Amino acid sequence: MNATVSTTKNVFRFGDKNTDGDRTMRNLLGGKGANLAEMGRIGIPVPPGFTITTEVCTKYNAIGKEQTIVLLEEEVTNAIKNIENIMGTTFGDAKNPLLISVRSGARVSMPGMMDTVLNLGLNDKAVLGLAKKTQNERFAWDSYRRLVQMYGNVVLGMKPENKDDEDPFEHCMAELKAERGISLDTEFNAEDLQRLVREFKALIKERTGHDFPSDPWEQLWGAVMAVFNSWNGKRAVYYRKINGIPADWGTAVNVQAMVFGNMGSNSATGVCFTRDAATGLNQFNGEYLIDAQGEDVVAGVRTPQQITLEGSKKWAELAKLTEEDRAKNYPSLQEVMPKQYQELFMYQNQLEIHYRDMQDMEFTIQDGKLWILQTRNGKRTGTAMVKIAIDMLREGLINEKEALLQLSPNKLDELLHPVFDLKGLKQAKVIAQGLPASPGAATGQIVFFADEAHKFKNSILVRMETSPEDLEGMNIANGILTARGGMTSHAAVVARGMGKCCVSGAGALKINYKKRTMTVEGYEYHEGDWISLDGSKGHILEGKVATMVPLLSDEFAEVMALSDKYATMKVRTNADTPKDARTARKFGALGIGLARTEHMFFEVDRIKTMREMILANTLKGRKLALEALLPMQRSDFEGLFEAMEGHPVTVRLLDPPLHEFVPHQLATQKELAEDLHISLASVKNKVAELHEFNPMLGHRGCRLGITYPEITEMQTRAIMEAALNLKAKGIMVNPEIMIPLVGSLEEFESQEAVIRTTAETIFKEYGDVIDYTIGTMIETPRSTLIADTIAERADFFSFGTNDLTQMTLGFSRDDAGKFLPIYLEKGLLKDDPFEVLDQEGVGQLVTLGAKRGRGAKPTLKIGLCGEHGGEPTSVTFCHDNGLDYVSCSPYRVPIARLAAAQAAIR
Amino acid sequence: MNATVSTTKNVFRFGDKNTDGDRTMRNLLGGKGANLAEMGRIGIPVPPGFTITTEVCTKYNAIGKEQTIVLLEEEVTNAIKNIENIMGTTFGDAKNPLLISVRSGARVSMPGMMDTVLNLGLNDKAVLGLAKKTQNERFAWDSYRRLVQMYGNVVLGMKPENKDDEDPFEHCMAELKAERGISLDTEFNAEDLQRLVREFKALIKERTGHDFPSDPWEQLWGAVMAVFNSWNGKRAVYYRKINGIPADWGTAVNVQAMVFGNMGSNSATGVCFTRDAATGLNQFNGEYLIDAQGEDVVAGVRTPQQITLEGSKKWAELAKLTEEDRAKNYPSLQEVMPKQYQELFMYQNQLEIHYRDMQDMEFTIQDGKLWILQTRNGKRTGTAMVKIAIDMLREGLINEKEALLQLSPNKLDELLHPVFDLKGLKQAKVIAQGLPASPGAATGQIVFFADEAHKFKNSILVRMETSPEDLEGMNIANGILTARGGMTSHAAVVARGMGKCCVSGAGALKINYKKRTMTVEGYEYHEGDWISLDGSKGHILEGKVATMVPLLSDEFAEVMALSDKYATMKVRTNADTPKDARTARKFGALGIGLARTEHMFFEVDRIKTMREMILANTLKGRKLALEALLPMQRSDFEGLFEAMEGHPVTVRLLDPPLHEFVPHQLATQKELAEDLHISLASVKNKVAELHEFNPMLGHRGCRLGITYPEITEMQTRAIMEAALNLKAKGIMVNPEIMIPLVGSLEEFESQEAVIRTTAETIFKEYGDVIDYTIGTMIETPRSTLIADTIAERADFFSFGTNDLTQMTLGFSRDDAGKFLPIYLEKGLLKDDPFEVLDQEGVGQLVTLGAKRGRGAKPTLKIGLCGEHGGEPTSVTFCHDNGLDYVSCSPYRVPIARLAAAQAAIR
Repeated sequence: MNATVSTTKNVFRFGDKNTDGDRTMRNLLGGKGANLAEMGRIGIPVPPGFTITTEVCTKYNAIGKEQTIVLLEEEVTNAIKNIENIMGTTFGDAKNPLLISVRSGARVSMPGMMDTVLNLGLNDKAVLGLAKKTQNERFAWDSYRRLVQMYGNVVLGMKPENKDDEDPFEHCMAELKAERGISLDTEFNAEDLQRLVREFKALIKERTGHDFPSDPWEQLWGAVMAVFNSWNGKRAVYYRKINGIPADWGTAVNVQAMVFGNMGSNSATGVCFTRDAATGLNQFNGEYLIDAQGEDVVAGVRTPQQITLEGSKKWAELAKLTEEDRAKNYPSLQEVMPKQYQELFMYQNQLEIHYRDMQDMEFTIQDGKLWILQTRNGKRTGTAMVKIAIDMLREGLINEKEALLQLSPNKLDELLHPVFDLKGLKQAKVIAQGLPASPGAATGQIVFFADEAHKFKNSILVRMETSPEDLEGMNIANGILTARGGMTSHAAVVARGMGKCCVSGAGALKINYKKRTMTVEGYEYHEGDWISLDGSKGHILEGKVATMVPLLSDEFAEVMALSDKYATMKVRTNADTPKDARTARKFGALGIGLARTEHMFFEVDRIKTMREMILANTLKGRKLALEALLPMQRSDFEGLFEAMEGHPVTVRLLDPPLHEFVPHQLATQKELAEDLHISLASVKNKVAELHEFNPMLGHRGCRLGITYPEITEMQTRAIMEAALNLKAKGIMVNPEIMIPLVGSLEEFESQEAVIRTTAETIFKEYGDVIDYTIGTMIETPRSTLIADTIAERADFFSFGTNDLTQMTLGFSRDDAGKFLPIYLEKGLLKDDPFEVLDQEGVGQLVTLGAKRGRGAKPTLKIGLCGEHGGEPTSVTFCHDNGLDYVSCSPYRVPIARLAAAQAAIR
Repeated sequence: MNATVSTTKNVFRFGDKNTDGDRTMRNLLGGKGANLAEMGRIGIPVPPGFTITTEVCTKYNAIGKEQTIVLLEEEVTNAIKNIENIMGTTFGDAKNPLLISVRSGARVSMPGMMDTVLNLGLNDKAVLGLAKKTQNERFAWDSYRRLVQMYGNVVLGMKPENKDDEDPFEHCMAELKAERGISLDTEFNAEDLQRLVREFKALIKERTGHDFPSDPWEQLWGAVMAVFNSWNGKRAVYYRKINGIPADWGTAVNVQAMVFGNMGSNSATGVCFTRDAATGLNQFNGEYLIDAQGEDVVAGVRTPQQITLEGSKKWAELAKLTEEDRAKNYPSLQEVMPKQYQELFMYQNQLEIHYRDMQDMEFTIQDGKLWILQTRNGKRTGTAMVKIAIDMLREGLINEKEALLQLSPNKLDELLHPVFDLKGLKQAKVIAQGLPASPGAATGQIVFFADEAHKFKNSILVRMETSPEDLEGMNIANGILTARGGMTSHAAVVARGMGKCCVSGAGALKINYKKRTMTVEGYEYHEGDWISLDGSKGHILEGKVATMVPLLSDEFAEVMALSDKYATMKVRTNADTPKDARTARKFGALGIGLARTEHMFFEVDRIKTMREMILANTLKGRKLALEALLPMQRSDFEGLFEAMEGHPVTVRLLDPPLHEFVPHQLATQKELAEDLHISLASVKNKVAELHEFNPMLGHRGCRLGITYPEITEMQTRAIMEAALNLKAKGIMVNPEIMIPLVGSLEEFESQEAVIRTTAETIFKEYGDVIDYTIGTMIETPRSTLIADTIAERADFFSFGTNDLTQMTLGFSRDDAGKFLPIYLEKGLLKDDPFEVLDQEGVGQLVTLGAKRGRGAKPTLKIGLCGEHGGEPTSVTFCHDNGLDYVSCSPYRVPIARLAAAQAAIR
């Protein structure tokens, strides 16, 4: 951010070629003021006005209202005259009054935080002049009614502090509606509005002891000071604190002529886009209404009409209207006001070129004169985003860096996952909200048990939470819905890895496994009922909603190629299966940053052997079971290595507590006891023995390898034998062995010794060697604090920010669902820290760990393999901290590549 | 530690008044060398010798053996001549040989890590001279046998690397024993020993290809280099790493004349103490044997005799010997060798005065000549420790600071808790080892359920683990034994608070609640069986062992008063009940640093209301239940405030997850459902809903107060009303409200607002105010990282290092029992981090948090209220970090006070 330019000029005009400011003066004029000035400067017809600078706001706090008026009086008077000249109206005039608005405008947008007053300049006399001039009595009185109401609320403090308390103006209006037997504001007639103005003014007098000011200048100064005051209002202060906005920035005040699109058949109002926001096609488009206000276009009471003739014809076709009907009842602006249309077309073109991005504009035609009210970069779908950026690049409008920076990485998701068909979606009812755990759309019939997912051709698996035993069913189901768990719960992590839609932590769901029902606010859904999930929004919808899979465009490929051209940080993937690995390669992953070996043990034929190992009470028994697991692990690794085509593959040694592998249901326990020819009691004892109060902080990670070195030995053997087997076939392999949950050098060395000794033995057996490295996951706060020590021995670090977040914040990702939503709602947290890296807290530890690690070993390779590896702001953070790579689930690889490129460009 | 003094002198002599070094030269001469020099310097007859400096060790590593000999040759030759002069023997002489020892000696003691060779100077000729001179052929050959064996092992590398491999020398000896039908080394006669020397030498030749060197000088250089080499031996390197000893310190080598107490009836050997190590009485005492070696005194083959006549008579009385029998068979040294006794008496006096502490000495009388081999500060009981320090202070031997520094804070524990009667203890069998969770001794009959603790007059409560529901039973039982849980498990923390003996985490115990048995390695113990616990050592003993409660002496009171005179950091207590608070006041606590309000809810009459609150599904329902809890909490606080007599009382708001309060057994659930007139299902549902995977990281701490502000309101009301009620009675109150588990400023502010608003309301109601402060527990890693932000609003910080340790290390204190013992055994950890603050890791966060907190608010009050608050090294750490106070369980208050004083003095 620029330092505020010091100046003695307090008021900056805009609205004609003599505009004083431009868009670089954001700090002084605020965002809105700078943009209005910019448009004025390049000749866009914005309603004229002026901006009182942010510096005045700061002065106001020091010198108070009277002195501020003295300071501003001359400049404001002149600026008002300038508006009068342009508009041909006079402020305070009884016949031809100039109406103005007063709005706040800080450096950064603070939506809804500060106040606005419209229609200033009206009083008991001017309202009559306006009615006469516009030939619209109702319009004039409604404008006046709005002024008195807003002024009363904003300037005179009539608005109740507690939003549950009764608003006296609204109360008044409600009483009149009841009396008149009407229900909408629009049903008030001119007389009603006159009466309301009277009543409002009486109310103001009664409550504040002051009259509503009829002097327009008094109105103006009151509104300006109210805007300054609102900068220090409760809501604004709170918003600033949460968003880290300094109090001394202050707000600017924008004073601008009012223009009206509802002054008769020669007036209109509308919105338009320079390109198609849905498809990205380079087609000017938009909607308008004759004799209407801006709010009428979006309110849906009248059907908006298309701006271009082409658009209008297409619309009529879809609406099944005849050309005659269309031309008569819904003509385009191009047909109705060809001159203004031409002007608008020219301006939209100019603005897109000027702002180098697709624009979303608002305009009003008052009595035949076109005014542009606002322009901003337009919102768009993911598909449109990619197409627009690449088109503009091809058109020479922007360069490669600009094209990349124009993209919002997270929106790429829309291109990679199924989406709902929009028509179906409009009719579907959202029955509950969960967390958007894994993006995409899914529809299917409810099943409650993973092993019954195949029961329907399209199923949605609904669970309290999922566990590794559910993997197969999760793979079969179209989508996954859980009542518990957060953004990094088992269901969420696995689903993202699979690229499968998932909504987690939907607390409103009550699941009854026995009855096979789920209840949401009293409504009961049964097995077999159709539901749909929106994994990008966390919505749960009733019934079947059609989905479609988007095709990856050439433009998408071009965006990816451009990203790799600029990114300096690499992107790898978290993948446990050759299938995931291949998907990730397709999306451009340059290696595996995290292969979780434990997921491999959950397959049906393996889990039994794994359990046998766990239940063995002797070293010999464990070794026997491990020998049986060896060939399976070896073939897993062969698959992963082969899929990665010589790119590095980071294999994490066994991490989860053994408790996760043993059966917890009586039936399965019995089965296991029979299989192993041991007593049920001994199975139960073992399960009880393995139980932990806080498994997250328990006997897991390298603590397993230290207490059972034979597990580390077996895994090392599987890795090395796989690598040697492939090498013998001429396939390049690049294994990196990662020791999990290390908190001290001693732990690292203890496991390193086992790995090196085992590897040496195997190399002798094979008469060949493999280049490999040994590193560790940095995932306890302690390991970041002593990173220098660990780096003495470790070849690489990989920040495991999922666990690091859990421990640094003391948030269990599986339990945080109980308070996280409340925290987000109350504004105690801006983001879910499992989704967006908590840079203020956890980030300090990442920075420290990276710095200390590199301090001890400048060549240390550093990556990050938490879920944050695919979240754009976190990717930027990693780039800024000099990380070598991030690793994320396959479907987030494109997002991370783009984010990495943007970070490098910035 | 001092920097090594640079010098060109490589060899420092000791043993007569011309001794070169003194005790300040530890870095250069090592600990042993500096002490020998010091004794020589002050005229104590130590066997003469010399020290080769630590600097030579460093040089040796650079220049190798040959160059080192060149470097040392002249100095060593002169130093050997000096020994010969003093001893009247000649190195290498066939008739009157000088025998020497070569020992390592680093700056700090590294017990057992490096090598020693004795009896150097013997060879085939000298052994005959020695036999003739001593008239003891067996002695001469045994000395020679030892030399060859040690030299072979240490210098020539005959010792097998793997300790399970066969030692060739031991094998030889075993074969000879079998042949001769004997079993002890002492049964070898001179011929046997001659044969062993022959066989040993042949073995050396066979295995190494070299002869055992008969040249004494070759022997000497070999041994010196072996000591240097041992500095870089595997064990030593490992030991250094664990203990943070730099490799470049090097070791010194001590070469010293051998003296023998087994050269006939004019020789003797013994150990003595300048004061009584058990009682602290100022009485010289010790044991000796005529014609014996040092090892004979401790071996127990012969009965050692008393040194003083008075001691001898007392001993005889206890042993029920007649005076005649005593005087004939077990005379004192005072009677047998009055001249040497007088000399010894003089030296012990001199040494105690010189070292200003009770000394533990070893001496040998060789052929009538007294040699002092070693002196060091003597080990002593807690009682003796206190008495000796205060006696010496009164005697003017030491000053107040020295008296305090002489004390070992942890040993004060022995004075505060019951201890076993020593006689009974000797006969008792230790059946298992657990963690020394709460010190003291206890004996009683086994009960397995807390509510049956009253079943026996003396009971020991044996549980898998305890929970808050067991509180009452824990209070009744004499001691508590758990199979699970660590040093900060529920059982451990609560027991320490109660000052009750507890052994936790005894993994060998298998408990069968149904059968009411506990099994340890196959042995079954039943309800009602007597067992005993040593909570200071973690021992579980079979049967009834008598205990006794020590009386607090005047000397103890004097130590405490002295401590307070010097300590700058205050000591508070963790107390939840007026009883604990009063105990802590008795021990000198200057306030409560942690009052856990939740413990108050577990009492029988309250837990029901608490559960009613939890089960209420509406705000109204919760408020009703909270209203019922209010008067109970208020009276709790009144009790605490009153007990603390105006000292600050830090009340922590509700912290544990609500799950801890609901019943988990069907019977109790049914009862609760009936009490509240709700269905069993709804009780069960609530219990299931509250279940958490990792409650430690779950919905607890301020997260409760944020989701249920009404709880914070009630607790604030209880605190303030209690304070106001007492104030009305003229009792001073100083409440500090502590918000737990804060991780962000927003959390703090959210709770602070509730507290302040509630307090204001109450102050208005009462028409009076209370001075109070609001602070927070710093117990998540994040809170330390953003401490500056939180300090902007908080009045005080209290480091909760229990939880901070759990989160920083990722160690669940309730589960770490599964791997902590293995970590400690393998040397991966030096201490249990829940017992001794992990200064390297967690300590960094404490330092950071304190620094950032004070940086933002210099007046910030900072304390620590984890279990570490009563552990001396951690207390020192707190002092060094400028903390204002530590808070610990009542029975550790004296320890913390002493440790704080020591830290201030140091």
